[in-house]
Amino acid sequence: MGNEVGFIGLGAMGEPMAANLIAVGYKLRVYNRTASKADALVAAGATRVDRPGDAAQPLAERLERGGIHISMSTVAPATTRRLAEHHAASGSTLIASPVFGRPDAAKAKRLWITASGPAAAKTAIRPLLEAMGQAIFDFGEEPGAANVAKLAGNFLIAANLEAMSEALAMVEKQGVERTAVADLLAKTLFACPIYQGYGKAVAEKRFEPVGFRLRLGLKDVELALRTASEVTMGLPIASLVRDRFLASLAKGRGEMDWSAIALSVLDDAGLGHKS
Amino acid sequence: MGNEVGFIGLGAMGEPMAANLIAVGYKLRVYNRTASKADALVAAGATRVDRPGDAAQPLAERLERGGIHISMSTVAPATTRRLAEHHAASGSTLIASPVFGRPDAAKAKRLWITASGPAAAKTAIRPLLEAMGQAIFDFGEEPGAANVAKLAGNFLIAANLEAMSEALAMVEKQGVERTAVADLLAKTLFACPIYQGYGKAVAEKRFEPVGFRLRLGLKDVELALRTASEVTMGLPIASLVRDRFLASLAKGRGEMDWSAIALSVLDDAGLGHKS
Amino acid sequence: MGNEVGFIGLGAMGEPMAANLIAVGYKLRVYNRTASKADALVAAGATRVDRPGDAAQPLAERLERGGIHISMSTVAPATTRRLAEHHAASGSTLIASPVFGRPDAAKAKRLWITASGPAAAKTAIRPLLEAMGQAIFDFGEEPGAANVAKLAGNFLIAANLEAMSEALAMVEKQGVERTAVADLLAKTLFACPIYQGYGKAVAEKRFEPVGFRLRLGLKDVELALRTASEVTMGLPIASLVRDRFLASLAKGRGEMDWSAIALSVLDDAGLGHKS
Amino acid sequence: MGNEVGFIGLGAMGEPMAANLIAVGYKLRVYNRTASKADALVAAGATRVDRPGDAAQPLAERLERGGIHISMSTVAPATTRRLAEHHAASGSTLIASPVFGRPDAAKAKRLWITASGPAAAKTAIRPLLEAMGQAIFDFGEEPGAANVAKLAGNFLIAANLEAMSEALAMVEKQGVERTAVADLLAKTLFACPIYQGYGKAVAEKRFEPVGFRLRLGLKDVELALRTASEVTMGLPIASLVRDRFLASLAKGRGEMDWSAIALSVLDDAGLGHKS
Repeated sequence: MGNEVGFIGLGAMGEPMAANLIAVGYKLRVYNRTASKADALVAAGATRVDRPGDAAQPLAERLERGGIHISMSTVAPATTRRLAEHHAASGSTLIASPVFGRPDAAKAKRLWITASGPAAAKTAIRPLLEAMGQAIFDFGEEPGAANVAKLAGNFLIAANLEAMSEALAMVEKQGVERTAVADLLAKTLFACPIYQGYGKAVAEKRFEPVGFRLRLGLKDVELALRTASEVTMGLPIASLVRDRFLASLAKGRGEMDWSAIALSVLDDAGLGHKS
Repeated sequence: MGNEVGFIGLGAMGEPMAANLIAVGYKLRVYNRTASKADALVAAGATRVDRPGDAAQPLAERLERGGIHISMSTVAPATTRRLAEHHAASGSTLIASPVFGRPDAAKAKRLWITASGPAAAKTAIRPLLEAMGQAIFDFGEEPGAANVAKLAGNFLIAANLEAMSEALAMVEKQGVERTAVADLLAKTLFACPIYQGYGKAVAEKRFEPVGFRLRLGLKDVELALRTASEVTMGLPIASLVRDRFLASLAKGRGEMDWSAIALSVLDDAGLGHKS
Repeated sequence: MGNEVGFIGLGAMGEPMAANLIAVGYKLRVYNRTASKADALVAAGATRVDRPGDAAQPLAERLERGGIHISMSTVAPATTRRLAEHHAASGSTLIASPVFGRPDAAKAKRLWITASGPAAAKTAIRPLLEAMGQAIFDFGEEPGAANVAKLAGNFLIAANLEAMSEALAMVEKQGVERTAVADLLAKTLFACPIYQGYGKAVAEKRFEPVGFRLRLGLKDVELALRTASEVTMGLPIASLVRDRFLASLAKGRGEMDWSAIALSVLDDAGLGHKS
Repeated sequence: MGNEVGFIGLGAMGEPMAANLIAVGYKLRVYNRTASKADALVAAGATRVDRPGDAAQPLAERLERGGIHISMSTVAPATTRRLAEHHAASGSTLIASPVFGRPDAAKAKRLWITASGPAAAKTAIRPLLEAMGQAIFDFGEEPGAANVAKLAGNFLIAANLEAMSEALAMVEKQGVERTAVADLLAKTLFACPIYQGYGKAVAEKRFEPVGFRLRLGLKDVELALRTASEVTMGLPIASLVRDRFLASLAKGRGEMDWSAIALSVLDDAGLGHKS
């Protein structure tokens, strides 16, 4: 792996990830639909390109002799598998490498990074992944495996957003402090990032800043459902949570943080305010 | 608070908790339906009594001049509230103090202990609670508050047992290692006791030893549902999980660990084996 | 069976049922909490009594030598079974005989009447039941059987209220006339009273007059759930519908007709108006 | 409308529908993947063609000057809308006309037929539709409207298969005759084809002959869910029923009649037999 990297997508996650790569010496060709998002990176030494294809170009040249495409988005494993076949046919390699973490974790190089695909390519890109995260989890050579793990994780976050919203609405209607119970949970049974972060936010009914949009949360829950149904099974909790996301969208909350499904839970508990 | 304590209930949780009290110098009068369960405690200095009323006696004498009843079971807040009124009428005090933790945590003095009720009584019993756990969480003076917190916690454990069972069944059918995904979760998003313990057990389909019986798990989910409906609200995830517990009981799994609802999830995924 | 009958409960259903008995020659002793509800019946020849026990008196005298208590309310089969044992112990007989139909059907003698209990007693009361309904459905001698059938029926009505509300909300958001689809259903697949009545009402969003209060609908769904859990099984659709009823109550709709759960379905579809 | 008709698809539904058209004088060009399915129709006067395009040919010639494509399959309204635009662009017309009824109803000319699309074309094809069904329900000119109605209907059938399966499992575990309760329902509240047909079958646990395959039932429930999510709403009962269908498929019941989801309900009630 040389040190030239094409980087496509400079949103709230991609921008700090790209910055971390530049910081350790990678030469980036960056593309983003809204070109101005690349300004800071260009100032830091990146080259801006005008089309996704141009970002991929240094990579594309290598694809013929062993280039590697690292796909870090949350997509269905089926999508990765199809794409991996396409790459294999043209002599290049696809590594699925979706990440866990919100924008502040991306900035702080604290992402958890999954990876699946051919072993040699994973070895080659390891330094690059290490420049963006705190730990790498290898799910083997089957290209879609990391996507399966990522969707399992996002499904479980969504399930917990719903479950904690329900629990804390009950707590509130029973006259107990939401934050006291969230604090207990975050220090004991669920002493983990999801409860220390989202649990606190839901308890305080604080849905800003937006780390991950509600409508994108729905997308991920639907990807999990599709990934399950592809192997002939349901995910009953995902079905329930999907309906909650849809109700939240129907009520105009699609651009809020996905933890704002708590507002729809409060509506059903008779504690709702217009949003 | 003197050092005489009546202790009722010497099951897998109660026995080590009582032993920890003796170890720091409390004098216990112990009662258990199966009397032989008290043998080790008696050897350690406890007095065995034949009826629950006798265990309560040292306490009962004080009830008239300020005795304290510490109720550590998982019950509905409504039950506690009624009992608290009864105690108040007779000049004694009830403290609700349900705990989180499995038998090994009880043994190791690592329980998380909640408490609600009159402040003076909570202060009086604090040393006693500290002798049994690693942390005490105070939910104020409303007597049922600690029960609400406890039920919220148990509901969330049950919700996660179901959700992780679904996620790992999907993972398995997609050809990915259950344990690899459980490990990822337990080290990242859900780096907490519930995922490090139950997550691992569910991933390995290992439901022994029995820490908490499935039929008792159903009881707690139903208490949560009732506690919610008492304040006119549903808990959709608890409803779904309740149905899973009932199906598990109907299939003869009531005496297994409650994490064994995973087997019913596997049944629905077409991965079921007879149990 | 003589022609003296004690009749307790003169609500929207009981009053016309009692009137129909008087019309065919029964002598009624009537009791109702709000005594004035009996005025019309007294004018028609009934005797008003001041306590439920007095209404039962003519019956009570016979209980020792074979009196029959006809229990027409919607209760759990377990309740009936306990009561039946009590009656049997004192030489009298209990017949469970809950009915299907709304107040207008009661008035028109068009109720569908279920019955379970000892055969001889059922034969004795048959003329009386025939005076109140259009058909009698015999569920055998096990006393709770008719209650099981009644709860199954009410659960299915509630399930259809929810399902048709969902279907018609989708129809509306897709730009199709709700009433046109409800009409299709009521003339074809579901050419039956539930769709011809409730289907039309839900399609028109017309929840007046109140035939059966929403909070009582919740009670019946909960009875069905309890009757199922008593034999170790869940009713997933009843669980879902229960949550919908609870949300409707939390939003202040408990005194509306139970078909008004459609309003909560519309809320989740983003079509809600304050009610 | 002339009397030449291209007819594609001679399955359990299509074959008797085609036969009914021939019986009243239409000249059919028929296509079916398995050509031998057309033998009886050919004997009755139809012309067999080897490719779908050939069946459409007489129609295709007219499409340029006003041909009409009647789409009777169960598809998403979105599919119909796209296809209708395509037809409009080439001067022909699409009428969506999905039907309700099982194969025996198709044979007996007792189908209920929906229709949506341009008024003139609907008028032109009316005699043809009347040759296949007992009633026609017009949903106006918006091309997808009939599909919305069809999916609403199929969703409600599926919802009732689940709900009646649950109710009758409870009835059975309570010791009451399944058939007695199904009979009550089919004569009273739900005196309609769905309960008189499927209700009886489910009560008797008789899932032969196969009128509509379970895996196709899943497809229709998923179409309903997609049609709802397209307008940003969930169908909670459809979500639940989808999970039941998936569990049934995972257990190998995909080729049974869709009423066989009752077997999976029985599994969860602990009444399951291997199938």
